[in-house]
Amino acid sequence: MKTAGVDGLLVTHLPDVRYLCGFTGSNAALMLAGGRAVLFTDGRYTVQAKVEVVGTRVVIAKKPAVTAACEWIVQEEIKRCGFDAGQTTVAALESMRKAVPAKLRRSLFVPVEPLVPKLRQIKDAEEIAKIRAAATLGCCLFNEMLEYLRPGLTEREVAATLEHAARMAGAEAMSFETIVASGERSALPHGRASNEKLPRQGFVTLDFGVILDGYMSDMTRTVHLGKAHPEERDVYDAVLEAQQAAVSVVAPGVTAGEVDEAARSVLRRLNLDRWFTHSTGHGVGLEIHEGPRLAAKQTQVLEPGMVITIEPGVYMPGRFGLRIEDMVLVTAKGHEILTPSVKAWIEL
Amino acid sequence: MKTAGVDGLLVTHLPDVRYLCGFTGSNAALMLAGGRAVLFTDGRYTVQAKVEVVGTRVVIAKKPAVTAACEWIVQEEIKRCGFDAGQTTVAALESMRKAVPAKLRRSLFVPVEPLVPKLRQIKDAEEIAKIRAAATLGCCLFNEMLEYLRPGLTEREVAATLEHAARMAGAEAMSFETIVASGERSALPHGRASNEKLPRQGFVTLDFGVILDGYMSDMTRTVHLGKAHPEERDVYDAVLEAQQAAVSVVAPGVTAGEVDEAARSVLRRLNLDRWFTHSTGHGVGLEIHEGPRLAAKQTQVLEPGMVITIEPGVYMPGRFGLRIEDMVLVTAKGHEILTPSVKAWIEL
Repeated sequence: MKTAGVDGLLVTHLPDVRYLCGFTGSNAALMLAGGRAVLFTDGRYTVQAKVEVVGTRVVIAKKPAVTAACEWIVQEEIKRCGFDAGQTTVAALESMRKAVPAKLRRSLFVPVEPLVPKLRQIKDAEEIAKIRAAATLGCCLFNEMLEYLRPGLTEREVAATLEHAARMAGAEAMSFETIVASGERSALPHGRASNEKLPRQGFVTLDFGVILDGYMSDMTRTVHLGKAHPEERDVYDAVLEAQQAAVSVVAPGVTAGEVDEAARSVLRRLNLDRWFTHSTGHGVGLEIHEGPRLAAKQTQVLEPGMVITIEPGVYMPGRFGLRIEDMVLVTAKGHEILTPSVKAWIEL
Repeated sequence: MKTAGVDGLLVTHLPDVRYLCGFTGSNAALMLAGGRAVLFTDGRYTVQAKVEVVGTRVVIAKKPAVTAACEWIVQEEIKRCGFDAGQTTVAALESMRKAVPAKLRRSLFVPVEPLVPKLRQIKDAEEIAKIRAAATLGCCLFNEMLEYLRPGLTEREVAATLEHAARMAGAEAMSFETIVASGERSALPHGRASNEKLPRQGFVTLDFGVILDGYMSDMTRTVHLGKAHPEERDVYDAVLEAQQAAVSVVAPGVTAGEVDEAARSVLRRLNLDRWFTHSTGHGVGLEIHEGPRLAAKQTQVLEPGMVITIEPGVYMPGRFGLRIEDMVLVTAKGHEILTPSVKAWIEL
């Protein structure tokens, strides 16, 4: 906050609020100023806030939480209050300005870099333990699915079964809408589970994650049903090589762009790079997409404690596609794969 | 757009994009200008956009979708391009401005009222059919749960079973994180399913919804396990009376505030209003929370085609709580309940 030149910080992005004070409700504004923290929420969360919030004063406001926070900012005579420009809408900033006296309107609120998301990129031991637990559950669920997958099941049945198993194993929810993309649909990088049936011959891509204690997992495996065409096998081997190449370079000091290039260059050599139409990965934690972003030319440097995905894929429209994804922890010496499920070719 | 004084509209909120052109991908910017519509997305969605989008040109951009849209705006010599200030972050507006020549930076982008969300409040026949299907599935699932609920199940098991049944019945996903709040936890208005076991004696509140073809349902029922204390029964009857009172006034021309007051005044008469700590309801459609907002003093007038929830509740911290919620369609003559599940007292 000092570097950003502000004497207060208004935090409204819910994962940031949770990270800082533990509150998981859906309406919150957290003010940080002069070593103090005050959480504003509403009457629905009186009980929950008492249980969850530690080291932070809780104010149950009758007005919108942000409005209450703004009045507190004025009362405490904060001069320059930072806010995250990437999480504050133009309309929200307008209401913040309307909630303070006219003479403060221009100067009080200062857009700052996303300070809390920057902190959140580096996970501490407790967070890593939670992410590890979620990732391990993901691997167990994938193993269960290997026993279950067979031609004729609809993609939606597969998703339903996976999600039920996740819930029964203690997951609070899935990290995102489960992707089950089979046959020709495997060429859709984000193919949500549909009513299509798994084919007798073809790929099935499962991309899914679970939430345990707020922290998310994310993994993708692609298996083949029936006998594969040689080209399918070749493309699988290429994607696996690209994925392993990218994982192998993960270490502190390496840039996000270098990791992306490690995957992309393998596919380029094999003339498959034009079918790799997305970036190589992203950070994961309290949100499914966090920093750092692993894409071409990204100069951000990896640091110990970051948890990232490595997920190259190849998608040939109208034909087939596949993706392989691990969660990887950046360690002091290099990296550790958090999703050690088999990646070798599987033909069911 | 004419009334708003703009000759172009940049739409980036994904449910708005879906509403206007059918595209369901996770990265999109839609430009409307001079009777034309152009959708910008990225290479992951080449196939999907072709399948989904009707009557709209699709541009697969190598740069961020919004940046590509901004360049198109300049090229088409649009003078004043509206954007939804409630859906555009301060940082996004900054990048939009950076994507256009300096001389246009100040004048080109004009914050406008949420035009598309306003259109979306009034559902057409096709949308109502989809919402009706989702609401009906919700009712069927609730009936299934009545056969299943019993003391000793964890709230999480209940949610898992409900969600699995939803998926198997064709739901694309749940509309929101399923709420199962039992015993003392029933006093949490937003009690996510926990590891607590359903009690031998006490309330269980189920608040859940399903998504069918993009459209969401939302309903809440509270049942009692074991024999109830007379006070529990009294509070149930009070909430039911409040809920029915609010439903009964729903009609075109009535304000959202009047509907809220219809529920609140019943609870006030019974001295329970201070435990009714949230608003009475909200619109539902492609999103779980849409306009109109049914809260105290809201002057917005109900119109035929709106689909709203009516969901008063009473929550006594440390003791018990309950909520009853229906989805209600505003019709030309009055209203229709879309979730006709039983609301009478149920003791399991």
